[in-house]
Amino acid sequence: MRGTIIHGTRDIRFEDRDDPTIVEPTDAIVRTVAACVCGSDLWRYRGIAEVTKPTPIGHEYVGVVEAVGNDVTTVRPGQFVVGGFLTSDNTCPVCKAGAHANCQNGTGYDGCQAELIRVQNADGTLLPTPDVPDDKTIPDILALSDVMCTGWHAAVSAEVRPGSTVVVVGDGAVGLSGVLAAAQLGAERVIAMSRHADRQALAKDFGATHIVAERGDDGVEQVKELTGGIGADAVLECVGTHDSVVQALQSARPGGMVGWVGVPHVSDIPQRNMFWRNVGLRGGPAPVRAYLPNLLELVLNGTIEPGKVFDLTLPLDQVAEGYAAMDERRAIKTLLRP
Amino acid sequence: MRGTIIHGTRDIRFEDRDDPTIVEPTDAIVRTVAACVCGSDLWRYRGIAEVTKPTPIGHEYVGVVEAVGNDVTTVRPGQFVVGGFLTSDNTCPVCKAGAHANCQNGTGYDGCQAELIRVQNADGTLLPTPDVPDDKTIPDILALSDVMCTGWHAAVSAEVRPGSTVVVVGDGAVGLSGVLAAAQLGAERVIAMSRHADRQALAKDFGATHIVAERGDDGVEQVKELTGGIGADAVLECVGTHDSVVQALQSARPGGMVGWVGVPHVSDIPQRNMFWRNVGLRGGPAPVRAYLPNLLELVLNGTIEPGKVFDLTLPLDQVAEGYAAMDERRAIKTLLRP
Repeated sequence: MRGTIIHGTRDIRFEDRDDPTIVEPTDAIVRTVAACVCGSDLWRYRGIAEVTKPTPIGHEYVGVVEAVGNDVTTVRPGQFVVGGFLTSDNTCPVCKAGAHANCQNGTGYDGCQAELIRVQNADGTLLPTPDVPDDKTIPDILALSDVMCTGWHAAVSAEVRPGSTVVVVGDGAVGLSGVLAAAQLGAERVIAMSRHADRQALAKDFGATHIVAERGDDGVEQVKELTGGIGADAVLECVGTHDSVVQALQSARPGGMVGWVGVPHVSDIPQRNMFWRNVGLRGGPAPVRAYLPNLLELVLNGTIEPGKVFDLTLPLDQVAEGYAAMDERRAIKTLLRP
Repeated sequence: MRGTIIHGTRDIRFEDRDDPTIVEPTDAIVRTVAACVCGSDLWRYRGIAEVTKPTPIGHEYVGVVEAVGNDVTTVRPGQFVVGGFLTSDNTCPVCKAGAHANCQNGTGYDGCQAELIRVQNADGTLLPTPDVPDDKTIPDILALSDVMCTGWHAAVSAEVRPGSTVVVVGDGAVGLSGVLAAAQLGAERVIAMSRHADRQALAKDFGATHIVAERGDDGVEQVKELTGGIGADAVLECVGTHDSVVQALQSARPGGMVGWVGVPHVSDIPQRNMFWRNVGLRGGPAPVRAYLPNLLELVLNGTIEPGKVFDLTLPLDQVAEGYAAMDERRAIKTLLRP
């Protein structure tokens, strides 16, 4: 088979690789129907995170089960499935507490921007669809593999509730998914912080009621003006830089909550923005398997269309261009099809 | 009247002062029935926080209303009242959101370890009792002025729920109150971290099911052993040092929550203990007025006896000895009576 290997900064290659095989009896092999490029993949692509050796890359996928190990009971060959960006057994005490991204037996993948994928913990990771979905729905289901569940996790972590006033920091695919999540969870007002017309338009389509183009102190000032001077009940931090975390904390009202899901490139959180203002901070990698059943139902019954975050579709063998387009902000998120 | 002035490190004096007067029409004057010394007062007493000039001190009290301003409608002279360690108007948008400690019009006090106290925002701060309580109940009501509401805030912030496994870091009066709060909120297991026999005994009396005497990594290890290897659902951080905050974060299970109320003497929070483990952190100064009605009812109907944290009672004019006893850990918390 062929799969994507990152060799170093801005060096993405689509290469021949050995076919993955069933190693553990809990494994499945999935033939990829669609995969995509994650904002977090760009950290290595841009050289911000080091690539010390050629490494298979990609962690989002939907596909058709090709084979399963002897212990797999909930999926079978021929089924269309979606799985999260980390595998989880869905049975350990941590999974039972709902924190599947921290599963005691969880694993990553050996590269999902590939024609075939080995999925460990298949029973606890993969969710089959009732039927093989039509082409139009595939991007929506693919989005559940990471970006939509991550936006959802931001909104849940920030305790978005019916009637909440919400700020979303970050207009990438995760931030936009966070807007959709906040609207679905009943937010009365969703303030999307975005400077790009196309992303502003999608944010509005996803349920944003207000757009703030300013950043930093000016952005916080605008949020305050829109929130009676006090800040938002819930803030979704979907970037991960020091400045965006501070901006998120400052945008919350006293007693408010920040849900953060942007991989933090910040070592310490300045507590002066938290304790004395009674502002909380919670989040991390999304427990995809916890959210998948509900979100898959919302996709299949047409309530949400999270696949709209994909604005570029390429053949899988043009994956390098998919990275370049996102790096250069020519695309929000690239979908890849074998 | 006479009141307590801190002049510098370990220099507490009980001195003649001018009687407070009604300044704003929303003020009340309260004649103190009982006051006490707070763990947070010790930061200045010990010289860790600087005292730049002689300053009235104390922020916990119960008493009888002596006079009210023209705009005060909910309390009247002769009523026995309790108020929180900060005043709040109970009407601004921040109070309406439940974050009374961050009231837009909130204030502190000009020293409550005194015979008379000026209470600003009287309507939004003071809660009268139906009758003048008996002497036995006064410590319990006094505890609501700060320490019990602060422990309660830790438990609420940490999302203690029926069935939760809870760790309480800190065995001072706040930590012990946190144990009581966690038990009241339905925790199934409450692990109190304490090295002192008398405090361990009170923790058990308040509902602790387990005691862990170890600190730091050893303490975290013990907590893990008691929680199936994963850590606690909810952790109450009631100290405020860098080490205690880290210990609290590490004691939480993935997806768990730390409620912090110890005045943090730490500038930055190490995020490595938060994001990748999906551990949240929330808290700050307690919104006393939000919790007072419920907790006062629990005191008056005999459900809780938070006044047990007072293990030393002194005449108000011996306030200096009250500080010394707490500083030297001869007392958990000192109650003062004029």
